[in-house]
Amino acid sequence: MQLGLIGLGKMGGNMAARLREKGHEVVGYDRSPDLRDVDTLAELVERLPVPRTVWLMVPAGKPTTDTIEELAELLAPGDLVIEGGNSHYVDDRRHAGQLSAKGIRYVDAGVSGGVWGRQNGYGIMVGGAAEDVAHAKPIFDALTPDSGGGYVHAGGVGAGHFVKMVHNGIEYGMMQAFAEGYELMAASDVVDDVAGTFDSWREGTVVRSWLLDLLVRALEEDPELEGIRGYAQDSGEGRWTVQAAVDHAVPAPVITAALFARFASRQDDSPAMKVVAALRNQFGGHAVTKSTGDSA
Amino acid sequence: MQLGLIGLGKMGGNMAARLREKGHEVVGYDRSPDLRDVDTLAELVERLPVPRTVWLMVPAGKPTTDTIEELAELLAPGDLVIEGGNSHYVDDRRHAGQLSAKGIRYVDAGVSGGVWGRQNGYGIMVGGAAEDVAHAKPIFDALTPDSGGGYVHAGGVGAGHFVKMVHNGIEYGMMQAFAEGYELMAASDVVDDVAGTFDSWREGTVVRSWLLDLLVRALEEDPELEGIRGYAQDSGEGRWTVQAAVDHAVPAPVITAALFARFASRQDDSPAMKVVAALRNQFGGHAVTKSTGDSA
Amino acid sequence: MQLGLIGLGKMGGNMAARLREKGHEVVGYDRSPDLRDVDTLAELVERLPVPRTVWLMVPAGKPTTDTIEELAELLAPGDLVIEGGNSHYVDDRRHAGQLSAKGIRYVDAGVSGGVWGRQNGYGIMVGGAAEDVAHAKPIFDALTPDSGGGYVHAGGVGAGHFVKMVHNGIEYGMMQAFAEGYELMAASDVVDDVAGTFDSWREGTVVRSWLLDLLVRALEEDPELEGIRGYAQDSGEGRWTVQAAVDHAVPAPVITAALFARFASRQDDSPAMKVVAALRNQFGGHAVTKSTGDSA
Amino acid sequence: MQLGLIGLGKMGGNMAARLREKGHEVVGYDRSPDLRDVDTLAELVERLPVPRTVWLMVPAGKPTTDTIEELAELLAPGDLVIEGGNSHYVDDRRHAGQLSAKGIRYVDAGVSGGVWGRQNGYGIMVGGAAEDVAHAKPIFDALTPDSGGGYVHAGGVGAGHFVKMVHNGIEYGMMQAFAEGYELMAASDVVDDVAGTFDSWREGTVVRSWLLDLLVRALEEDPELEGIRGYAQDSGEGRWTVQAAVDHAVPAPVITAALFARFASRQDDSPAMKVVAALRNQFGGHAVTKSTGDSA
Repeated sequence: MQLGLIGLGKMGGNMAARLREKGHEVVGYDRSPDLRDVDTLAELVERLPVPRTVWLMVPAGKPTTDTIEELAELLAPGDLVIEGGNSHYVDDRRHAGQLSAKGIRYVDAGVSGGVWGRQNGYGIMVGGAAEDVAHAKPIFDALTPDSGGGYVHAGGVGAGHFVKMVHNGIEYGMMQAFAEGYELMAASDVVDDVAGTFDSWREGTVVRSWLLDLLVRALEEDPELEGIRGYAQDSGEGRWTVQAAVDHAVPAPVITAALFARFASRQDDSPAMKVVAALRNQFGGHAVTKSTGDSA
Repeated sequence: MQLGLIGLGKMGGNMAARLREKGHEVVGYDRSPDLRDVDTLAELVERLPVPRTVWLMVPAGKPTTDTIEELAELLAPGDLVIEGGNSHYVDDRRHAGQLSAKGIRYVDAGVSGGVWGRQNGYGIMVGGAAEDVAHAKPIFDALTPDSGGGYVHAGGVGAGHFVKMVHNGIEYGMMQAFAEGYELMAASDVVDDVAGTFDSWREGTVVRSWLLDLLVRALEEDPELEGIRGYAQDSGEGRWTVQAAVDHAVPAPVITAALFARFASRQDDSPAMKVVAALRNQFGGHAVTKSTGDSA
Repeated sequence: MQLGLIGLGKMGGNMAARLREKGHEVVGYDRSPDLRDVDTLAELVERLPVPRTVWLMVPAGKPTTDTIEELAELLAPGDLVIEGGNSHYVDDRRHAGQLSAKGIRYVDAGVSGGVWGRQNGYGIMVGGAAEDVAHAKPIFDALTPDSGGGYVHAGGVGAGHFVKMVHNGIEYGMMQAFAEGYELMAASDVVDDVAGTFDSWREGTVVRSWLLDLLVRALEEDPELEGIRGYAQDSGEGRWTVQAAVDHAVPAPVITAALFARFASRQDDSPAMKVVAALRNQFGGHAVTKSTGDSA
Repeated sequence: MQLGLIGLGKMGGNMAARLREKGHEVVGYDRSPDLRDVDTLAELVERLPVPRTVWLMVPAGKPTTDTIEELAELLAPGDLVIEGGNSHYVDDRRHAGQLSAKGIRYVDAGVSGGVWGRQNGYGIMVGGAAEDVAHAKPIFDALTPDSGGGYVHAGGVGAGHFVKMVHNGIEYGMMQAFAEGYELMAASDVVDDVAGTFDSWREGTVVRSWLLDLLVRALEEDPELEGIRGYAQDSGEGRWTVQAAVDHAVPAPVITAALFARFASRQDDSPAMKVVAALRNQFGGHAVTKSTGDSA
């Protein structure tokens, strides 16, 4: 089928290539003139047959919201927008409402797979009305692995990004579990071969996983991780998962602990621990470590 | 080679079978007359060529300690004991010391793989002196997968059980991460197909893993887990991991949170939360929920 | 000075009484005809001298928002609204913006002290512009303790409710710390006199505090808390504190753990722990505890 | 009564002074010749009337164990040893067993109060047999506050140190709760007067406590804690509390989180977070922050 694709960066560009290989026609737009097939969104809309299907693959937040607003003016009733970026599921509902007022349909799709996706296929998690999802199914089929796996229609609008968010929250917890195990083995005077231990776990054990494979690869490159600082960003989904858990009164201690460990990793000095040190000094006369001028 | 194997339960029996299939001679002893080849440990020791190799596969704690003490009387200098049960690594060191006083050698081996091990091979994590480990290498080779993986000599005595312990701690954290993700999806009004979502993650995603495969299988059998209570035992290694982390001043918030979640799952009522409820009642006049007579 | 007070429930009614005792004139409105001095907000507005000062003491969320909207129509430029309920600080900013568009001033006030406040004075935490806060200072002086303490102008609009929210988050952590200590002492076979131990801590120790006093009182009434279920509600501020911490990338493991413990206390069965039990069953053949029909 | 006191450091010296002021006769021994009344433990034992009462106030661990062993040789059946240091409660039981074999009695006493204790009295938490505790009661009465509070006989041998340990665990949780609240207020763009906010909480609020008083004092001296690094030691009792919680299957997420925050505060770089950063780099191509040569 024919698809308009907005956003031809690393992810969008690879997806366009895979879709074309699978026989779909893609009309691409990007801010960068070098990447795009058409020069304006209006031209993209003109080039597509009615009802149009347009996939958004631009950064979450304002860029996505702005594009949705522009499309609301350009598209016609019956057209379909698929938001494939990393939107928050609450924003999906707002976007869908804006478009629905004009008769435009909306589906959200969480996409995973990164740089391997073009060749191996992407994991696609979709939210939206059944008929809208069915309309776009040939696109999803082309993007997901040839095995037929890696696809779910998880629920109504927002469900695709919701489950992608939860996926990332789980990922945070799994990574932190391996990380704590690594640190404990490295800190002990017991284990001589930490890297070899992880490698041995790749077969026959309960913890075997893709993340373990990646950890073994990282330790092959740098067995004591000397070249890497213990500094980890977070990309938003972990925060949203914790906030959704709090909203739904779901205890999520592991995912939250993993998120907080990332927050702490980015602090040069911890204001909270200044308080603890100050209190110990007050009641016990415990010496405090003086702050150097530039670390406060 | 020839091996004495003490403990022919589910694990030990399967291991004996695999070893025999691989051409080793196993003399087995068990408390149960139906399972054993010899009727006493003394007879087992008599039947083995010098220097003897004896593998223990009995429950951790007193059964293992008692057997070690009995073997200390029966074995001769140069003989080798391999402790393959779930001993705490600190106990390994004590056991090794006891045997070393008599010139008997000691190796500890963490074994994973459960009921699949007989066919697929076991993961084996070994601790001990290099020459002692080398002596038993043919046994380890027979037990591990035919691929050559699943084996590590992790360090000195105790290292095998230490890394097995850490493996299980990581496993706790991973399981809890999936569990929290499940609960959040189930609690939301957003996700219609939780089981299908997990299934879709088996390809192309960051969280793909054997535990995910097992979760999908469990959800196929019982999509809302209605037949299972949220009640989880712990087998000791999780506790030891947390205590080792505390001993080594290693922050392990994820593994610990997973352990505490299991503790809480086994409580009919939480004494701690009684205190919280009582305090809220004291300062705010918040109503307390009366305990029924039998739940305290 | 003269003050309009909207909401004459337990808190508002006591505050009105204290203000009158201190010589202020209070015109009160409440939904309940039995409690109110005037029958409509319009009448309340008419009765106040210009510029008017109106204190809101109604439930957070829709009731507060609705009242703000009604006041926006009734009040005149230069009038001052003090929101003394438990609003979220983000809502304060929205409310202030709505009123500001009509020239109406806005101050938020977090109020603590519960039923003891009428006699002992309330803790008042205020957010708003300096001149607006100064205008209402006689009211704050009358409400706070006679000692002169218990008052802070914490920052601009929203700051009063923000620090009240943080106060409650800290309170969650402190309560849970006592609760865990209680449970550990009660679970051990070591401590014969748990209640007496808490009582002894009221003098000379680091943990002496009002919450400890309350806990001792609760244990005097019911030494093993047999009459209270371990079931704790949360009133919103704890959730907001965690969400604000996540928004600001502040690690808040203690406050969050206290909140999650409350969530868990309200579950008959834990969906997350069903997953853990199901996984243990899958990989280890560990028996699961069957759910009874009504607990799922 | 007459008391032998071993260990005349800051704590022991002040206690001796308070006991003498209250009319007791103290024979003191210390490693330092300048502080002691007698030059050997043998001389101390000789100087005391039978049955002798000897209070130990030496560092926990080997110094205490060595002194116990020496006293086991010097004392006679019916004599009483009071261990007032910071022993682990499990060690108390071992010590009591060693002495009991010689007919010597044993009581453990957790002591709190620090430098204020000499003047205000100490909090004393006692474990031991009723008749042994009764024998030493005049000493406890002299050490505790004149009000009659601050004393508990918590249970059998070990109970005194057990409840002192739990007291310190609770203290960890409370301090961390205040610390997180501080950091959140400081991190927000909402609160202009953090120190003033804490000060205002000293009256009328739920969080009022001695720790809050100390925090206000610390903030008066250094309003943004610029001179203090966020680096906090732990003294052992927090670790023991967590390990006891794990032993007793008691969920203790708050106390544990507070302990782990201290561990993390002492790390220049986090090995665990190196793993998280390495994994993000592996699967997402996320840039890692290079470690500088000396921080690994």
